[in-house]
Amino acid sequence: MRRALLILAILSVTAATGRAQTGGRPASTNAAGQAFPSLDAGRRATFHVVAPSAFRVQVSVGGTYDLRRQPGGTWAVTTPPLAAGFHYYWLLIDGVMVADPASQGFFGLSRMVSGIEVPEAGVDFYDERDVPHGEVRNRFYRTGAGERRHCLVYTPPGYDADAGARYPVLYLQHGAGEDETGWARQGRANFILDNLIAAGRAVPMIVVMENGNIADVMARPDWWGPAATGPSTGPSMAQWSPAARAFEHVLLDETVPMVDATYRTVADREHRAVAGLSLGGMQAFQIGLGHADRFAWVGGFSAAGAQFPDPATAYGGAMADAAAFNRRTGLLWVSTGTTEGVMFDNNKRFDSVLRRAGIDHVYFESDGTGHEWQTWRRSLYGFAPLLFRR
Amino acid sequence: MRRALLILAILSVTAATGRAQTGGRPASTNAAGQAFPSLDAGRRATFHVVAPSAFRVQVSVGGTYDLRRQPGGTWAVTTPPLAAGFHYYWLLIDGVMVADPASQGFFGLSRMVSGIEVPEAGVDFYDERDVPHGEVRNRFYRTGAGERRHCLVYTPPGYDADAGARYPVLYLQHGAGEDETGWARQGRANFILDNLIAAGRAVPMIVVMENGNIADVMARPDWWGPAATGPSTGPSMAQWSPAARAFEHVLLDETVPMVDATYRTVADREHRAVAGLSLGGMQAFQIGLGHADRFAWVGGFSAAGAQFPDPATAYGGAMADAAAFNRRTGLLWVSTGTTEGVMFDNNKRFDSVLRRAGIDHVYFESDGTGHEWQTWRRSLYGFAPLLFRR
Repeated sequence: MRRALLILAILSVTAATGRAQTGGRPASTNAAGQAFPSLDAGRRATFHVVAPSAFRVQVSVGGTYDLRRQPGGTWAVTTPPLAAGFHYYWLLIDGVMVADPASQGFFGLSRMVSGIEVPEAGVDFYDERDVPHGEVRNRFYRTGAGERRHCLVYTPPGYDADAGARYPVLYLQHGAGEDETGWARQGRANFILDNLIAAGRAVPMIVVMENGNIADVMARPDWWGPAATGPSTGPSMAQWSPAARAFEHVLLDETVPMVDATYRTVADREHRAVAGLSLGGMQAFQIGLGHADRFAWVGGFSAAGAQFPDPATAYGGAMADAAAFNRRTGLLWVSTGTTEGVMFDNNKRFDSVLRRAGIDHVYFESDGTGHEWQTWRRSLYGFAPLLFRR
Repeated sequence: MRRALLILAILSVTAATGRAQTGGRPASTNAAGQAFPSLDAGRRATFHVVAPSAFRVQVSVGGTYDLRRQPGGTWAVTTPPLAAGFHYYWLLIDGVMVADPASQGFFGLSRMVSGIEVPEAGVDFYDERDVPHGEVRNRFYRTGAGERRHCLVYTPPGYDADAGARYPVLYLQHGAGEDETGWARQGRANFILDNLIAAGRAVPMIVVMENGNIADVMARPDWWGPAATGPSTGPSMAQWSPAARAFEHVLLDETVPMVDATYRTVADREHRAVAGLSLGGMQAFQIGLGHADRFAWVGGFSAAGAQFPDPATAYGGAMADAAAFNRRTGLLWVSTGTTEGVMFDNNKRFDSVLRRAGIDHVYFESDGTGHEWQTWRRSLYGFAPLLFRR
C-alpha cells in the first residue's frame, strides 16, 4: 500500500497547488493532469513549484527567472511573453539543474529536460487536427555487426489500407544532443505531414527518423572541437565531421537497406530524400549531396557548420558542374531563422554562394525565429510539399 | 550560439562527473551517454548529482537515501542491493521532488519521474534479443464525440509482410497514475511478446495499450475514495468504480471498433482478450467478465479492489452458473506478487473464492516481488502463451 499512499499524497499536493494565478491554461506539454506551467493569452508562462525547504528556485526557459516563495511553501513566477513554439526548460533548485515532474520529458541537450509548447496565434499546421492520421512506429533492428538500433517511422494515412501502394521516403534528422524522438515529439513532424497530405499539398510519404548523434563520437570530450572555446563562431565543418561521417555509414549501409526491405518504398534516388536540422542538416548535406546516386532531394534546416564549403570542391565535387547538378537534383533546400545569429549569417552566406555558383536551390528564412523548433517546423512545412515532384 | 555554448557547458559537467566509483555500469534506463546512475554486479546503484550549492540531496528508489557531498560539489550514494526489475525513482533537492535529467523519463505516480532498470541475473525474457521484432505504433484517433485519443498498438513480427493474415487482439492496461506508454516502456511488453512468439510459445497477436486513467475522474479530489484516509486497506471496488466504468465506455465503444476497423483483427470474442495491472486489472475484470459477448480471455495482474465480489452476483451474474462460465470462458487469470501485502492477500483470497465457486481459472504468484513491474512482466509472460488456444 506504500505506493497507494504515495499516490494519495501526490494528488493532495496537486490539489493544494492547482489554483492558477493568471487565468492561464495548462501547457499542452504538461504531464497529464498537471496545472502548471500554465500559459495566458499573452504567452506568459506561470511556473509553480512546491518547495517548502528550498532556498532558491529558478526556471530556465530561454532566460532564467527566479520564482518567489508564497505562503505555504509553493514558489511561483510568471515570465515575460515567451516566443511562440516549443522550448526546452528546466528547474534550478538551489542551483541544481533538474527536470520538472509536471512536464512531459524530452531528450534535448543530451539529457532529459522539460518542455513547454507556446501556441502561435492563428497557426495550426503542426497541431493534431481532425484529418486522417498516419502512424509513428517504433522500429527495433540490428546492424550487420549486431548493434541494437531504434528508429521511428512515420507511415502516411492509408498505408495499411492499400497493400499495393509504394511510397517515397524522407530521412529526417534531429540536432546535436537530441535523438530519434525529437522530430515527432518536439517537432510534431507527423502532424505536419498529416495536415499537408490531407490538404493535398504533399505527396504521401514515409518519414524515417534515426538517431544521428553517434554515441561514441558525442562522448568524446573533444567532439565539439576547439573552436567552441574561442569566439562563438561554432565548430567548423572539419570539426563536426566525425559525427557526420559516422552516421553516414549507419544511414547508408544499415537504415536505408532495412527500410527498403521492411516498408513498401520506391527504392531509388528519385524517391528518396534526406533532411535535418542543425547537426542533422550538416549530415543531410554530407550524405545527400555526397551520394547523389541515392538521394535526389536534400534539405538543411539551420544546418550546422560555420564555414560552408566551396561549391566547386565540396561533397566530392557534386556541385562542380552546376548544370549537371541542376539536372540531377530534385531539390536543394537551405533554411534558417532570422534571429539565429551566426547560424543565420552562415546559412544566408551559403545561399549567396550557391546563387553565384548557379546552383538551383530554395532558400527560406523563418521570420523572427531562432535556432529552435519553430524554425524547423516551418522549414519542414515548406520543404515537404516540394518533395518528389519534378 | 547560446544553445551551442550551453551544450558545451553541459558536456563539460558530464565529463567532470563521468568517473564511476564502484566499477558499475550505467543503467540501461539512463538518458543516452549518462554514466549515472550505475549498477554493480550486486545490484547496488550509485547515484551522482552535481549540486555545489545544495544543502541536502536525496534519492528515493524504494527507500530514500542521502547522498554525500564530495569535494567539488558532486554528491554521491551507493544504495544497498535493489530488487531486480524496473523501479521508479526521483531526486529530492533540498526536499523538492524532481526528475533526474540523467534518466529517461517515465509517466508514473501521475507525473514524469525517473526510472532504473535493475537486471535480474539469468533472466532475459523481457530483453531486446536477436529475434524478429514487432512494431509499437503510435495511433492517434478521435472518439465519436471528437475527443483526441492516443494509444500504442503492438503489431507482431511479419504483420506487414503477409497482408492476408488476421490476428487476435489483447487489450492491455496500465495501473493508476500511469498511461498508455507504461506497458511498452516500463513493462517491455513488446519484447516479451517478440520473445514468446519467436519461441513459438505464444500465438502472434496484436496488443493494444490505451490510457485508462480517465483524466476527469482522476482529477477529482475524491477519486481515491474515503478508505484511503482510514486503515491502509485500499479503496473498495465501489470506490474505484467511477474510473473503471468511465474507461469501460471508451474501450468498448471507441477503441475496440477503431482497432477492428484499422488493423487486420479477427473481430469476435474468441479472438479478443483484456488484461491489466492494478487499476487496469480491476478494469479488465469489469470489462472482460462484464461483457462476455465481446471477450473470452481475461487477466488481472495484481488487480486492485480490496474486496473482490461474490462470484454469485458479480459482473452482472457472469459467474453465477459456473459450468456455463467455464464453457464460455477461454481463460480467467489471476496473479499477484508474494510481497504485495494487502494486494497479495486480496488476490489470494480471490483465488480461493473462485476455486470454491468452481470457476476455472489460473492463479499465479510471482515469487518475491511486490506491487511493481517485475510482477507484471512475469504475469504477462505466463498469461500470453495461454491466450487464443482452447
